[in-house]
Amino acid sequence: MTCPAEFVALAERLADAAGPIVRAHFRTPVAVLDKADDSPVTIADREAESAMRRLIEATHPDHGIVGEEHGSRNPDAEWVWVLDPIDGTKAFITGKPSFGTLVALLHRGKPVLGVIDQPILGERWIGAAGRPTTLNGRPVRTRACPELGRAALYATMPEMFIGPDGERWAALTRSVKLVRYGADCYAYALLASGFVDAVVEALLKPYDYCALIPIIEGAGGVVTDWNGLPLGLGSDGRVAAAGDPTLHAQLVRVLGDA
Amino acid sequence: MTCPAEFVALAERLADAAGPIVRAHFRTPVAVLDKADDSPVTIADREAESAMRRLIEATHPDHGIVGEEHGSRNPDAEWVWVLDPIDGTKAFITGKPSFGTLVALLHRGKPVLGVIDQPILGERWIGAAGRPTTLNGRPVRTRACPELGRAALYATMPEMFIGPDGERWAALTRSVKLVRYGADCYAYALLASGFVDAVVEALLKPYDYCALIPIIEGAGGVVTDWNGLPLGLGSDGRVAAAGDPTLHAQLVRVLGDA
Repeated sequence: MTCPAEFVALAERLADAAGPIVRAHFRTPVAVLDKADDSPVTIADREAESAMRRLIEATHPDHGIVGEEHGSRNPDAEWVWVLDPIDGTKAFITGKPSFGTLVALLHRGKPVLGVIDQPILGERWIGAAGRPTTLNGRPVRTRACPELGRAALYATMPEMFIGPDGERWAALTRSVKLVRYGADCYAYALLASGFVDAVVEALLKPYDYCALIPIIEGAGGVVTDWNGLPLGLGSDGRVAAAGDPTLHAQLVRVLGDA
Repeated sequence: MTCPAEFVALAERLADAAGPIVRAHFRTPVAVLDKADDSPVTIADREAESAMRRLIEATHPDHGIVGEEHGSRNPDAEWVWVLDPIDGTKAFITGKPSFGTLVALLHRGKPVLGVIDQPILGERWIGAAGRPTTLNGRPVRTRACPELGRAALYATMPEMFIGPDGERWAALTRSVKLVRYGADCYAYALLASGFVDAVVEALLKPYDYCALIPIIEGAGGVVTDWNGLPLGLGSDGRVAAAGDPTLHAQLVRVLGDA
């Protein structure tokens, strides 16, 4: 299916609404790190999600919404929006602009539209079924990289790979050209733009990965779970993305349960 | 001593000269990652360092220069410039703007001036003996954080801690509030600005850390080797930085050889 243009336009309006709220709370002084409900990141997260939900409810009250902060509403609807106002809260609270606002739209459970918006850098990637992925309106493509030995690999942090996952991750890191950490959703955006070859993560939630899928697929890449199966709301949180389909098959060989 | 204002002005001119060269090579398409002498990062590194060296040689031919790319010239001079045009080459080649151009000036071996310039984000931290550290001209300060248990800790990657260093790093990560990877010199800049409490690294070279010292000290922080000793050209590459002097003492207790 092709994602309706009006939904792409709405996704842009959602990111437009979240941006000023997120920017207003970025790099505000915090005395010390405490798990307080009124921390800048919590306030920005809640307010930005509320702003996005209001826009959806005003224009498409029949659509479902799954949000990181305010929970689910009508999650079995034909169209469901999945929202993460600040993906990368640890980057956000330490002042590093590698976090992002994630917006996804699912049609009967399948992600057909995704936005990664970096409101500090002014960068917005949009992927939608039936059209090429764009960065600030210009089409982007993944790059060819058919060999693990030449690949640049990202993950948010090695601590996300627990038990057997850690052994597979370690095996993977020994096979690639370069490993880097700490980019959250931004790593997938760099993959879509052809500067990173693979991103492998675990313990992700649907609002962490749904938006990435149309962006990567619309740029020529492949993203699945570690066994090569499509990602959806019920996946186990292990994500394997590659810009080159041949490289993706190699990732699944190293990471899969088979 | 107070760093002469004319040297601060020259350091700004060096960063001004490097910036356009670095920006011109950032996010240029690279087919695959190969260790080639003509990769964009290598070209940018060499050209930016050459531009900086020309400015120093034209104005202060008696000064020494230690550069990552073009080696040392008169390294025993009273005044020695230490240059790293692109600190964070892996971030650079994967399109992530967390790398930086580093400029340091040593007086009789002691760093008295440092610049961290992020030419994509347009952020420049300057630290100089005798004046407060600034970000784009505005003074910045580290924040109070007297307890490890509340600290946000950064390192570039866990793989930099080998053997016993790895055990000490692991012990440290278990003590803090939050650990993040992947920021290179940018982590120290965030520490100077009061958003990160500690940065601990190993295997660094003098051109990786000399510029950071005046920036951190001029913002109220402390940076030494893992034993609490001053850093200089002959240090062992293990760096411990904290925004709060009390926290720094705790870092050294966990990391030191004693």
